[in-house]
Amino acid sequence: MKEIILGLLDERAYDKLKSVQREIAPQDLAELLQELREDGRKSDVLTLFRLLPKQAAAEVFVEMDAELQEALIRDYSDGELRSILNELYLDDTVDLIEEMPANVVRRILKVTDAKTRAQINEILNYADDSAGSIMTVEYVALNGDMTVSEAFARIRRTGVDKETIYTCYVIDAGRRLVGTVSARTLLLADEFETIADLMTPHPFSVTTDTDREIAVNLFEKYDLLALPVVDREERLVGIVTVDDAMDVLLEETTEDIQKMAAIIPTEKPYLKIGVLETWRHRIPWLLIMMLSATFTQIIISGFEAKLQSVVILTAFIPMLMGTGGNCGSQSSVSVIRSLSLDEIRLRDVGKILWKETRVAIVSGATLAVVSFLKVLLLDRWLLGSAEIDAAVSLTVALSLAVTVVIAKTVGCILPLLAKRLGLDPAVMAAPFITTIVDGLALLAYFCMASLLLASRFSTAV
Amino acid sequence: MKEIILGLLDERAYDKLKSVQREIAPQDLAELLQELREDGRKSDVLTLFRLLPKQAAAEVFVEMDAELQEALIRDYSDGELRSILNELYLDDTVDLIEEMPANVVRRILKVTDAKTRAQINEILNYADDSAGSIMTVEYVALNGDMTVSEAFARIRRTGVDKETIYTCYVIDAGRRLVGTVSARTLLLADEFETIADLMTPHPFSVTTDTDREIAVNLFEKYDLLALPVVDREERLVGIVTVDDAMDVLLEETTEDIQKMAAIIPTEKPYLKIGVLETWRHRIPWLLIMMLSATFTQIIISGFEAKLQSVVILTAFIPMLMGTGGNCGSQSSVSVIRSLSLDEIRLRDVGKILWKETRVAIVSGATLAVVSFLKVLLLDRWLLGSAEIDAAVSLTVALSLAVTVVIAKTVGCILPLLAKRLGLDPAVMAAPFITTIVDGLALLAYFCMASLLLASRFSTAV
Repeated sequence: MKEIILGLLDERAYDKLKSVQREIAPQDLAELLQELREDGRKSDVLTLFRLLPKQAAAEVFVEMDAELQEALIRDYSDGELRSILNELYLDDTVDLIEEMPANVVRRILKVTDAKTRAQINEILNYADDSAGSIMTVEYVALNGDMTVSEAFARIRRTGVDKETIYTCYVIDAGRRLVGTVSARTLLLADEFETIADLMTPHPFSVTTDTDREIAVNLFEKYDLLALPVVDREERLVGIVTVDDAMDVLLEETTEDIQKMAAIIPTEKPYLKIGVLETWRHRIPWLLIMMLSATFTQIIISGFEAKLQSVVILTAFIPMLMGTGGNCGSQSSVSVIRSLSLDEIRLRDVGKILWKETRVAIVSGATLAVVSFLKVLLLDRWLLGSAEIDAAVSLTVALSLAVTVVIAKTVGCILPLLAKRLGLDPAVMAAPFITTIVDGLALLAYFCMASLLLASRFSTAV
Repeated sequence: MKEIILGLLDERAYDKLKSVQREIAPQDLAELLQELREDGRKSDVLTLFRLLPKQAAAEVFVEMDAELQEALIRDYSDGELRSILNELYLDDTVDLIEEMPANVVRRILKVTDAKTRAQINEILNYADDSAGSIMTVEYVALNGDMTVSEAFARIRRTGVDKETIYTCYVIDAGRRLVGTVSARTLLLADEFETIADLMTPHPFSVTTDTDREIAVNLFEKYDLLALPVVDREERLVGIVTVDDAMDVLLEETTEDIQKMAAIIPTEKPYLKIGVLETWRHRIPWLLIMMLSATFTQIIISGFEAKLQSVVILTAFIPMLMGTGGNCGSQSSVSVIRSLSLDEIRLRDVGKILWKETRVAIVSGATLAVVSFLKVLLLDRWLLGSAEIDAAVSLTVALSLAVTVVIAKTVGCILPLLAKRLGLDPAVMAAPFITTIVDGLALLAYFCMASLLLASRFSTAV
């Protein structure tokens, strides 16, 4: 496709280019323009973009990355910029403004009319993670006393500019949301029926300051195509559409995954983040966790003299701590994911703890038995150590069992505790828990050794 | 709400119950019935469900969990079962059959007519992770030579049973998909225009055996409400709707997250999985990783004699391995997530490696400097060890830097390698990588000690 377009550009076959571009989806055309820009063909990008009819240009524009958008705006005359902006939905304009540097934003605001500017400012005022910040104000509003045919007339007259016409919102004289009616219901109804008879009353709605994650979960639960957003006086101010909800869902999940991996979340795609920015998002947790490992250092060096008496015990430290970390992350990640899918609530804490404890006991027993046999039979021969005998194997195996129980308990409790305290459960995932479990596992190990290897495990070498 | 309904049940106020139930969303009513069942009120559940009109009953039924569905089917007469099944969309019936035990499935198939049974069998034959397995066969098909008003007549006549009427599919005489036309376009068009003039030709489509994850990503990328599914001869056989796509998206993400946490994926909600089943999903990776820790054991015990000469080095092992694990999981999780969001491709391997190497060098340097100062200034005093001096601090710091570089490189390479080999990148996440990085980190540490602490770090105590 790229070759065809480059060929037509060389021939200046603009009419053909126009019809070729019509066949390409906006998302794909945006990607192609980005590739051309990366190849250094800036003027070709501008030419291709200028060949697009206004509305198509707007559709391609919203799919581009911020760099290309900024470049195009800079190359554009005020008139061209205005005609593109007129075609954008308001939520896309707001997204654009949030991405652009200040001087570009000034130009954008300069060419928009006063009413749009006021609406933009209103949406920009909503908190970043609120339903207000992701809503669009382009929706179809109907009145209850309209007939079906009047409703269709309204849709035909105003629907072209609306982001969706498949759900229409019924409002009263005070603009309060009183119901919804789907285009499907309208299509299947008799043309003289009134909207008030056809509408579903008491529709789900969120307020502008509802957390966007909560709003998005409603889409998933109730299979919605759009969700109305009202202000504190129940007046309809906008809607969230399913495509934006899906984007938010993906963003929120990516954020959760990043947090679980001890990364400070970012919305930018992997390859668009510079080295230093990546470093800034990754180094804080690494530093915190490196410094908090001081606890394990203190524990080990506290038992240093004893460790020297049965030095083979050192060899099992990584295995113990690794298994502890893995068990902890299995529990914490299960709990964190279930919390964000709304499968479990805080009040289930008893059930969760009871379940994890039983899983921990069964898992701990399995791992203990396997490791006892493995240490006694395989390691003795593999590590060629005369020190390994039944007592050492038992010490390792029992410590492992205790570690598993500690890890799974801590792993399920901490995310719930975070949630209870109003923090994000996802930051309580693997790395954080590992630091705690590491310390407890070592303590368990050394206590077990003092108990079972009493005669050998002492400062008297 | 529960109290109101229980009160009305006691009063046997069935008419009131009917109107109350009408006000509740199917999802919420399903949850309420599940709660009542858990409270032991089985006959109340049946009463409430029988009060629902047929279509509402079907809507509530698909939202219930498998246990309640099974219980209701067992309590139902064949006639009642048939009338519910008639109201279900085919994809929901297929989901139901996949969940139910064999004897229930036999009853379901007994009461469905031959044509539906054939369609069910066809969908059941598609692989679990294919687009065919999540499609519905209820869609609106139009012909190119229809006019807009003929199209509306078709929609009104057949649309009631269709899962969506907002995108209509244009097929030729051989049932081959030739275009789509949205209800929006039809509504805004003149009634005498023909579908062929209005339709968007060459629509996106997938085949029945396309991976469902790929199909779902198309929704996100192209903001679709529905996606047509064709067979190998390009004939339209079904569509995937956006609500099902969203469910799949969540399921696939949950699977990825579970794999990253070394859990064998399951679709069941957390509290619905028994202890032994949870154990079965978690124990395999725990065993594998425990056993593979044998490598770190061998390395440590190989250096055992030397370690005894500078025993304080043992205290830093957890910190080194922990930081290595965290660095590795940051990189691997970033790469895995970007791969599944389609932000990076295999051909970007050079860019990714170059980026991670630079991030690793900057992060390694930061961590090394901080840890050098911390070990020298804080630990010396905190651990009260005379052994800690500049040489030991330097050994720890430099080993840390090397570990970070190893961890980040391994962390980004392994998921890409897995993808290249046709495996799931997500299994190459934190736990797996940690095992490898642990071993390499220890080797680096001991080599560094041999180099920098040559005089002390030797078997000659």
